[in-house]
Amino acid sequence: MRLCKTVEEVRSFVTSVRFEGKTVGLVPTMGYLHPGHLSLVHEAKRRCDVVVVSIFVNPTQFGAGEDYQTYPRDLQRDAGLVADAGVDAIFAPEAAEMYPPGFSTSVDVAGVSEPLCGASRPGHFRGVATVITKLFNIVRPDMAFFGQKDFQQVLLIKRLVEDLNMDIQIVDVPIVREADGLAMSSRNVYLSEEDRKAALVLSRSLSLARQLVAEGERDVARLKERVVREIQSEPRAEIDYVEILSVPHLKQLDLLADNALLALAVRFGKTRLIDNTVLEA
Amino acid sequence: MRLCKTVEEVRSFVTSVRFEGKTVGLVPTMGYLHPGHLSLVHEAKRRCDVVVVSIFVNPTQFGAGEDYQTYPRDLQRDAGLVADAGVDAIFAPEAAEMYPPGFSTSVDVAGVSEPLCGASRPGHFRGVATVITKLFNIVRPDMAFFGQKDFQQVLLIKRLVEDLNMDIQIVDVPIVREADGLAMSSRNVYLSEEDRKAALVLSRSLSLARQLVAEGERDVARLKERVVREIQSEPRAEIDYVEILSVPHLKQLDLLADNALLALAVRFGKTRLIDNTVLEA
Repeated sequence: MRLCKTVEEVRSFVTSVRFEGKTVGLVPTMGYLHPGHLSLVHEAKRRCDVVVVSIFVNPTQFGAGEDYQTYPRDLQRDAGLVADAGVDAIFAPEAAEMYPPGFSTSVDVAGVSEPLCGASRPGHFRGVATVITKLFNIVRPDMAFFGQKDFQQVLLIKRLVEDLNMDIQIVDVPIVREADGLAMSSRNVYLSEEDRKAALVLSRSLSLARQLVAEGERDVARLKERVVREIQSEPRAEIDYVEILSVPHLKQLDLLADNALLALAVRFGKTRLIDNTVLEA
Repeated sequence: MRLCKTVEEVRSFVTSVRFEGKTVGLVPTMGYLHPGHLSLVHEAKRRCDVVVVSIFVNPTQFGAGEDYQTYPRDLQRDAGLVADAGVDAIFAPEAAEMYPPGFSTSVDVAGVSEPLCGASRPGHFRGVATVITKLFNIVRPDMAFFGQKDFQQVLLIKRLVEDLNMDIQIVDVPIVREADGLAMSSRNVYLSEEDRKAALVLSRSLSLARQLVAEGERDVARLKERVVREIQSEPRAEIDYVEILSVPHLKQLDLLADNALLALAVRFGKTRLIDNTVLEA
């Protein structure tokens, strides 16, 4: 497996495999990999000849006071995990390689970036859209793989790729959960033992909503209220948002008609976790 | 020569010539071609195996009250001119092909986009950066060619390409002028006979500044004042801006040390013309 630290190294690797007629899949990550990331790698391996994993904790998608400095990093462990998974190259640049002095360009996706994490984390999705545009231009993959845990991010990247005429297929892969239901996240390592238990309220409240919809509930306000009440039953949980929005435009809904996204962001101590499910009306 | 109206058509053309191992040059234009555009085409022919000219009056780079509706268009005449010049394909999409319903992405280049035409025409350079990103992703040229008449645009596109890691060489080509000194522009057709004569004050004032610098003048305020006075000696001329800024960052200067850009925007009746020269200190 190749470990590329510079744009030039990864470009030269991709150019050489392309020259052999091979297809290239990219799995963009911020590292500290868990089975959710590895499911993206497996899907990429299944669909592309060569797989590149990027590992870059992107400073521009963190706001002031967020966890950019403390975000967990362990490149050596990550490299072992993806090598075992059959990845062909890691692209792990330093921040200065991605944002050299004088850097001044940004990419914005209006609309889909505005609610949910866009409202809670101003500038977050501008950072995401900009770094993903860069990674796509650097690696020029045929396909790129993203987890549905960041459902809004997936919608944003699909919109970005279509709007800017990038010739890349975006593949989204289901959330991977721990045995007890907690969605895999690099940020789960922040949780104290008590918060780790309390965080099960996320997947429990999603299940509750799915069950209510299966029983015929279509009223969005009532559904949200039940989810909020469920989360509030856990005293360690502090809600950032609970929303039910249309797919793919993330607009407000009164009644479930088509599929809709139920998305949660909840704090446990200093740790903000997100989770979501699609409600099938 | 191929006339492509859709993204798919021009992509398929470029894919086929790339498959033959040919290099591709792109000349992005808004059409109504003049010898300035053709000098870009000649440079592209000289440096690339295959040349694509895009002709697209991009609505998003025009502000409210600007001349998007009336901007001169003549695709048939343009097609004849570029066919004679040996161009291989025209990409001339409709606005709806470039901006289908739901389009919501924009690309911004801070800094270099802010003074000069960025200050006079809010949103203009966001429109330029976005459409150029799209055109580059659609055509995927090896090189792209731009005229120095839009000097700020050239700086912006070089910054954009570097920041977003686009693997495209940007080539800028000198201003082409009429025999009497007027810089070629599609907007020159708007000028009345009197304004056409009056507009010579632009190139005359640039020559004056170059002469003053050659004689040793280094004080930016004095240089600007002489240029302003020269332009004001023409009663039909109404100054939008006269600026002398550093290259490539377009920062304010007190004294000429290195090369600097002298840039003008002046109205004659309803017609706004730009011109510029590099002052070599």
